[in-house]
Amino acid sequence: MSEVQMVSFDEKGLIPAVVQDADTNEVLMLAWMNRESLRRTVDTGEATYWSRSRRSLWRKGETSGHVQKVVEIRLDCDADCVLLRVEQAGGIACHTGRRRCFYRQLGTGAAPGWRETEPVLQDPGRFRDGR
Amino acid sequence: MSEVQMVSFDEKGLIPAVVQDADTNEVLMLAWMNRESLRRTVDTGEATYWSRSRRSLWRKGETSGHVQKVVEIRLDCDADCVLLRVEQAGGIACHTGRRRCFYRQLGTGAAPGWRETEPVLQDPGRFRDGR
Repeated sequence: MSEVQMVSFDEKGLIPAVVQDADTNEVLMLAWMNRESLRRTVDTGEATYWSRSRRSLWRKGETSGHVQKVVEIRLDCDADCVLLRVEQAGGIACHTGRRRCFYRQLGTGAAPGWRETEPVLQDPGRFRDGR
Repeated sequence: MSEVQMVSFDEKGLIPAVVQDADTNEVLMLAWMNRESLRRTVDTGEATYWSRSRRSLWRKGETSGHVQKVVEIRLDCDADCVLLRVEQAGGIACHTGRRRCFYRQLGTGAAPGWRETEPVLQDPGRFRDGR
């Protein structure tokens, strides 16, 4: 896949992938890809990442069913970050059972600190492949 | 700033920051922050990053005027990525003079390869702080 050759992976062979919901435009998560995971994502149309903690390829949704069908792949100016727009199966992207990983918002003024703004939609004990 | 203490910087002291347009919800860019740049961003309400190439703090828009006024800061589940929603001054986030850094889209089927989909809005020679 010559398209993957253009991508600039870092010294660990990884690139950050920003994942955006194709319907709502919410940013759901940031994950990491190596060359093989990007290749599989392009070839299958389903998001596959590199789990830095497990040090293995991770097809998103492989145990949870929360598959991400890829609608669009974009590359940034320095070719060192990709943006995926996806259809998120089950409406849950985060391994905590929330819709998206960015569930904490920084408060300002009289209410500083990180506030959780997104509810847990599913018991996270039921799946293990959120990340 | 105790909020910054909660954030998990990597072994280089950095964290990726996904930057989203607060009006259109487009993902404009991904940049990197160290602790001091996040602190300044929180304190000033304007995005300040860490330039990995120049190895210095970089107040977005400092020479171009393409300042990013921060509307919201979010933190992800692992506390190792932040999401900024910003008002993008001048409507140009990318150092190439385009609206956003993700100006290349991967074509499929009969038209594979990366296609540029965003026009250059301003001669990039006019400013140097796009990244």
